[in-house]
Amino acid sequence: MAAPDVTVFVCVSCRRRADNAVGFDEPGRVLAERLADRLADDAPGAAVVPVECLAVCNRPCTVALVGDGKWTYLVGDLDNEAHLDDIAAAARAYGATENGIIAWKERPLPFRKGVVARVPPLAFRPQTPTPALSGSDALTQD
Amino acid sequence: MAAPDVTVFVCVSCRRRADNAVGFDEPGRVLAERLADRLADDAPGAAVVPVECLAVCNRPCTVALVGDGKWTYLVGDLDNEAHLDDIAAAARAYGATENGIIAWKERPLPFRKGVVARVPPLAFRPQTPTPALSGSDALTQD
Repeated sequence: MAAPDVTVFVCVSCRRRADNAVGFDEPGRVLAERLADRLADDAPGAAVVPVECLAVCNRPCTVALVGDGKWTYLVGDLDNEAHLDDIAAAARAYGATENGIIAWKERPLPFRKGVVARVPPLAFRPQTPTPALSGSDALTQD
Repeated sequence: MAAPDVTVFVCVSCRRRADNAVGFDEPGRVLAERLADRLADDAPGAAVVPVECLAVCNRPCTVALVGDGKWTYLVGDLDNEAHLDDIAAAARAYGATENGIIAWKERPLPFRKGVVARVPPLAFRPQTPTPALSGSDALTQD
Protein backbone atom coordinates (compact mmCIF):
# COMPACT_ATOMS: atom_id res chain seq x y z
CA MET A 1 0.00 0.00 0.00
CA ALA A 2 1.31 3.44 -0.83
CA ALA A 3 2.42 5.60 2.06
CA PRO A 4 -0.37 8.01 3.07
CA ASP A 5 0.20 11.51 1.78
CA VAL A 6 -0.45 13.54 4.87
CA THR A 7 1.46 15.89 7.09
CA VAL A 8 -0.19 16.75 10.39
CA PHE A 9 1.02 20.06 11.76
CA VAL A 10 0.27 20.18 15.47
CA CYS A 11 0.26 23.53 17.23
CA VAL A 12 2.34 23.21 20.38
CA SER A 13 1.89 26.80 21.56
CA CYS A 14 -1.79 26.88 22.57
CA ARG A 15 -2.32 27.27 26.28
CA ARG A 16 -5.24 25.67 28.06
CA ARG A 17 -6.31 26.93 31.44
CA ALA A 18 -6.47 24.13 33.95
CA ASP A 19 -9.86 23.34 35.47
CA ASN A 20 -10.17 24.27 39.13
CA ALA A 21 -6.58 25.33 39.25
CA VAL A 22 -4.29 28.23 38.66
CA GLY A 23 -2.07 28.17 35.58
CA PHE A 24 -2.24 26.38 32.27
CA ASP A 25 -0.73 23.59 30.28
CA GLU A 26 0.23 23.21 26.62
CA PRO A 27 -1.81 20.21 25.48
CA GLY A 28 -0.51 20.35 21.90
CA ARG A 29 2.94 19.17 22.95
CA VAL A 30 1.46 15.99 24.38
CA LEU A 31 -0.77 15.56 21.32
CA ALA A 32 2.19 15.82 18.95
CA GLU A 33 4.03 13.09 20.83
CA ARG A 34 1.05 10.78 21.17
CA LEU A 35 -0.03 11.21 17.57
CA ALA A 36 3.47 10.59 16.24
CA ASP A 37 3.62 7.35 18.23
CA ARG A 38 0.19 6.29 17.06
CA LEU A 39 0.76 7.02 13.38
CA ALA A 40 4.19 5.40 13.41
CA ASP A 41 2.29 2.16 13.95
CA ASP A 42 -0.87 2.86 11.96
CA ALA A 43 0.37 4.97 9.05
CA PRO A 44 4.15 4.95 8.85
CA GLY A 45 4.26 7.32 5.86
CA ALA A 46 2.46 10.10 7.71
CA ALA A 47 4.44 12.97 9.19
CA VAL A 48 3.57 14.63 12.49
CA VAL A 49 5.27 18.00 12.79
CA PRO A 50 5.06 20.28 15.83
CA VAL A 51 4.65 23.98 15.00
CA GLU A 52 5.08 26.96 17.27
CA CYS A 53 1.73 28.65 16.73
CA LEU A 54 -0.85 28.10 14.04
CA ALA A 55 -2.40 31.39 15.25
CA VAL A 56 -5.73 29.88 16.26
CA CYS A 57 -4.87 30.17 19.96
CA ASN A 58 -8.34 30.02 21.48
CA ARG A 59 -9.31 26.52 20.30
CA PRO A 60 -6.64 24.08 21.55
CA CYS A 61 -5.58 21.60 20.43
CA THR A 62 -5.39 22.69 16.81
CA VAL A 63 -3.99 20.68 13.91
CA ALA A 64 -3.62 21.25 10.17
CA LEU A 65 -3.89 18.37 7.71
CA VAL A 66 -1.74 19.13 4.68
CA GLY A 67 -0.73 17.19 1.58
CA ASP A 68 0.83 17.85 -1.80
CA GLY A 69 -1.82 19.30 -4.11
CA LYS A 70 -4.56 18.85 -1.51
CA TRP A 71 -6.94 21.12 0.35
CA THR A 72 -5.56 22.06 3.76
CA TYR A 73 -7.90 21.58 6.73
CA LEU A 74 -7.43 23.36 10.04
CA VAL A 75 -9.30 21.76 12.92
CA GLY A 76 -9.47 22.89 16.54
CA ASP A 77 -11.10 21.94 19.85
CA LEU A 78 -9.26 18.62 19.88
CA ASP A 79 -8.49 16.80 23.10
CA ASN A 80 -5.09 15.14 23.20
CA GLU A 81 -6.51 12.01 24.83
CA ALA A 82 -10.22 11.65 24.12
CA HIS A 83 -9.84 12.51 20.42
CA LEU A 84 -6.57 10.72 19.69
CA ASP A 85 -8.27 7.85 17.83
CA ASP A 86 -10.33 10.33 15.79
CA ILE A 87 -7.31 12.42 14.86
CA ALA A 88 -5.38 9.34 13.75
CA ALA A 89 -8.38 8.13 11.75
CA ALA A 90 -8.79 11.52 10.08
CA ALA A 91 -5.09 11.63 9.21
CA ARG A 92 -5.28 8.19 7.60
CA ALA A 93 -8.46 9.11 5.71
CA TYR A 94 -6.95 12.40 4.53
CA GLY A 95 -3.81 10.61 3.43
CA ALA A 96 -5.88 8.28 1.29
CA THR A 97 -7.78 11.07 -0.50
CA GLU A 98 -6.66 12.55 -3.78
CA ASN A 99 -7.74 16.11 -3.03
CA GLY A 100 -7.76 16.28 0.77
CA ILE A 101 -11.54 16.33 1.11
CA ILE A 102 -12.67 13.48 3.35
CA ALA A 103 -16.20 12.30 2.58
CA TRP A 104 -18.56 13.63 5.25
CA LYS A 105 -19.68 10.22 6.46
CA GLU A 106 -16.05 9.18 6.94
CA ARG A 107 -15.15 12.22 9.01
CA PRO A 108 -14.79 11.61 12.72
CA LEU A 109 -17.19 13.85 14.64
CA PRO A 110 -14.54 16.28 15.95
CA PHE A 111 -13.51 16.87 12.32
CA ARG A 112 -17.07 17.82 11.42
CA LYS A 113 -17.57 20.18 14.33
CA GLY A 114 -14.09 21.63 14.79
CA VAL A 115 -13.17 22.98 11.37
CA VAL A 116 -11.48 26.36 11.77
CA ALA A 117 -10.79 26.93 8.08
CA ARG A 118 -9.80 25.22 4.87
CA VAL A 119 -7.60 26.38 2.00
CA PRO A 120 -7.43 25.07 -1.55
CA PRO A 121 -4.18 23.78 -3.03
CA LEU A 122 -2.10 26.52 -4.62
CA ALA A 123 -3.01 25.53 -8.17
CA PHE A 124 -6.75 25.55 -7.47
CA ARG A 125 -8.85 27.52 -9.91
CA PRO A 126 -12.64 27.41 -9.93
CA GLN A 127 -14.17 25.57 -12.80
CA THR A 128 -15.70 27.94 -15.25
CA PRO A 129 -19.25 27.09 -16.18
CA THR A 130 -19.39 24.88 -19.23
CA PRO A 131 -21.42 26.56 -21.99
CA ALA A 132 -24.47 24.62 -23.03
CA LEU A 133 -23.91 22.53 -26.13
CA SER A 134 -26.28 22.78 -29.04
CA GLY A 135 -26.49 21.85 -32.68
CA SER A 136 -23.28 21.12 -34.50
CA ASP A 137 -21.11 22.30 -31.57
CA ALA A 138 -22.17 19.27 -29.62
CA LEU A 139 -21.13 16.95 -32.41
CA THR A 140 -17.60 18.29 -32.51
CA GLN A 141 -16.92 17.86 -28.80
CA ASP A 142 -14.42 15.23 -27.76
CA MET B 1 10.86 43.53 -11.00
CA ALA B 2 9.84 39.90 -10.57
CA ALA B 3 6.15 39.14 -10.45
CA PRO B 4 4.91 38.91 -6.86
CA ASP B 5 4.49 35.34 -5.70
CA VAL B 6 1.06 35.50 -4.14
CA THR B 7 -2.30 33.93 -4.70
CA VAL B 8 -5.19 35.51 -2.82
CA PHE B 9 -8.03 33.08 -2.31
CA VAL B 10 -11.19 35.07 -1.56
CA CYS B 11 -14.13 33.31 0.05
CA VAL B 12 -17.24 34.19 -1.92
CA SER B 13 -19.66 32.14 0.18
CA CYS B 14 -19.75 34.09 3.47
CA ARG B 15 -23.07 35.77 4.13
CA ARG B 16 -23.32 39.07 5.94
CA ARG B 17 -26.57 40.15 7.50
CA ALA B 18 -27.59 43.56 6.32
CA ASP B 19 -27.80 46.31 8.95
CA ASN B 20 -31.34 47.41 9.74
CA ALA B 21 -32.72 45.19 7.06
CA VAL B 22 -33.91 41.72 6.35
CA GLY B 23 -31.69 39.41 4.35
CA PHE B 24 -27.99 39.28 3.65
CA ASP B 25 -25.40 39.87 0.99
CA GLU B 26 -22.25 38.02 -0.03
CA PRO B 27 -19.55 40.65 0.35
CA GLY B 28 -16.74 38.32 -0.75
CA ARG B 29 -17.98 38.29 -4.34
CA VAL B 30 -17.57 42.05 -4.54
CA LEU B 31 -14.19 41.86 -2.80
CA ALA B 32 -12.89 39.30 -5.30
CA GLU B 33 -13.84 41.56 -8.21
CA ARG B 34 -12.49 44.75 -6.67
CA LEU B 35 -9.25 43.14 -5.53
CA ALA B 36 -8.63 41.54 -8.93
CA ASP B 37 -9.08 44.93 -10.58
CA ARG B 38 -6.82 46.64 -8.07
CA LEU B 39 -4.01 44.09 -8.24
CA ALA B 40 -4.15 43.92 -12.03
CA ASP B 41 -2.85 47.50 -11.90
CA ASP B 42 -0.66 47.34 -8.81
CA ALA B 43 0.75 43.80 -8.92
CA PRO B 44 0.05 42.15 -12.25
CA GLY B 45 1.67 38.84 -11.25
CA ALA B 46 -0.68 38.31 -8.31
CA ALA B 47 -3.63 35.96 -8.70
CA VAL B 48 -7.02 36.60 -7.12
CA VAL B 49 -9.07 33.41 -7.01
CA PRO B 50 -12.65 33.17 -5.72
CA VAL B 51 -13.35 30.08 -3.62
CA GLU B 52 -16.69 28.65 -2.58
CA CYS B 53 -16.15 28.48 1.18
CA LEU B 54 -12.96 28.71 3.17
CA ALA B 55 -15.03 27.37 6.10
CA VAL B 56 -14.52 30.41 8.31
CA CYS B 57 -18.10 31.58 7.73
CA ASN B 58 -18.59 33.85 10.73
CA ARG B 59 -15.88 36.41 9.90
CA PRO B 60 -16.57 37.79 6.40
CA CYS B 61 -14.81 38.75 4.30
CA THR B 62 -12.11 36.11 4.61
CA VAL B 63 -9.04 35.70 2.42
CA ALA B 64 -6.07 33.34 2.33
CA LEU B 65 -2.64 34.51 1.20
CA VAL B 66 -0.78 31.60 -0.36
CA GLY B 67 2.52 31.22 -2.19
CA ASP B 68 4.86 28.46 -3.27
CA GLY B 69 6.91 27.33 -0.28
CA LYS B 70 5.44 30.05 1.96
CA TRP B 71 3.39 30.15 5.13
CA THR B 72 -0.32 30.47 4.38
CA TYR B 73 -2.20 33.22 6.23
CA LEU B 74 -5.96 33.21 6.68
CA VAL B 75 -7.41 36.60 7.59
CA GLY B 76 -11.02 37.50 8.29
CA ASP B 77 -13.17 40.48 9.31
CA LEU B 78 -12.24 42.32 6.11
CA ASP B 79 -14.51 44.94 4.59
CA ASN B 80 -14.68 44.88 0.81
CA GLU B 81 -14.49 48.66 0.58
CA ALA B 82 -12.85 50.14 3.69
CA HIS B 83 -10.04 47.57 3.73
CA LEU B 84 -9.41 47.26 -0.01
CA ASP B 85 -6.20 49.29 0.12
CA ASP B 86 -4.97 47.27 3.10
CA ILE B 87 -5.70 43.94 1.42
CA ALA B 88 -3.89 45.01 -1.74
CA ALA B 89 -0.94 46.25 0.32
CA ALA B 90 -0.78 42.99 2.27
CA ALA B 91 -0.90 40.96 -0.94
CA ARG B 92 1.98 42.96 -2.40
CA ALA B 93 4.01 42.67 0.81
CA TYR B 94 3.32 38.92 1.03
CA GLY B 95 4.31 38.48 -2.59
CA ALA B 96 7.65 40.14 -1.87
CA THR B 97 8.51 37.91 1.11
CA GLU B 98 10.53 34.74 0.82
CA ASN B 99 8.63 32.76 3.44
CA GLY B 100 5.22 34.44 3.56
CA ILE B 101 5.77 36.14 6.91
CA ILE B 102 5.23 39.89 6.58
CA ALA B 103 7.20 41.91 9.12
CA TRP B 104 4.83 43.12 11.85
CA LYS B 105 5.45 46.81 11.23
CA GLU B 106 4.63 46.34 7.54
CA ARG B 107 1.33 44.59 8.20
CA PRO B 108 -1.77 46.65 7.59
CA LEU B 109 -3.83 46.83 10.80
CA PRO B 110 -6.60 44.46 9.62
CA PHE B 111 -3.89 41.86 8.98
CA ARG B 112 -2.67 42.19 12.57
CA LYS B 113 -6.11 41.92 14.13
CA GLY B 114 -7.91 39.57 11.77
CA VAL B 115 -5.66 36.52 11.56
CA VAL B 116 -7.81 33.38 11.68
CA ALA B 117 -4.95 30.90 11.33
CA ARG B 118 -1.62 30.31 9.63
CA VAL B 119 -0.09 27.12 8.22
CA PRO B 120 3.55 26.39 7.43
CA PRO B 121 4.63 25.34 3.95
CA LEU B 122 4.41 21.59 3.40
CA ALA B 123 8.16 21.06 3.70
CA PHE B 124 8.41 22.92 7.01
CA ARG B 125 10.21 21.10 9.78
CA PRO B 126 11.16 22.74 13.07
CA GLN B 127 14.82 23.39 13.52
CA THR B 128 16.28 20.91 15.94
CA PRO B 129 18.32 22.47 18.71
CA THR B 130 21.98 22.62 17.84
CA PRO B 131 24.04 20.67 20.38
CA ALA B 132 26.55 22.77 22.25
CA LEU B 133 30.02 22.57 20.78
CA SER B 134 33.00 21.79 22.94
CA GLY B 135 36.62 20.73 22.60
CA SER B 136 37.73 19.24 19.34
CA ASP B 137 34.16 18.96 18.04
CA ALA B 138 34.07 22.70 17.70
CA LEU B 139 37.26 22.75 15.67
CA THR B 140 35.92 20.34 13.08
CA GLN B 141 32.74 22.29 12.38
CA ASP B 142 32.39 24.05 9.04
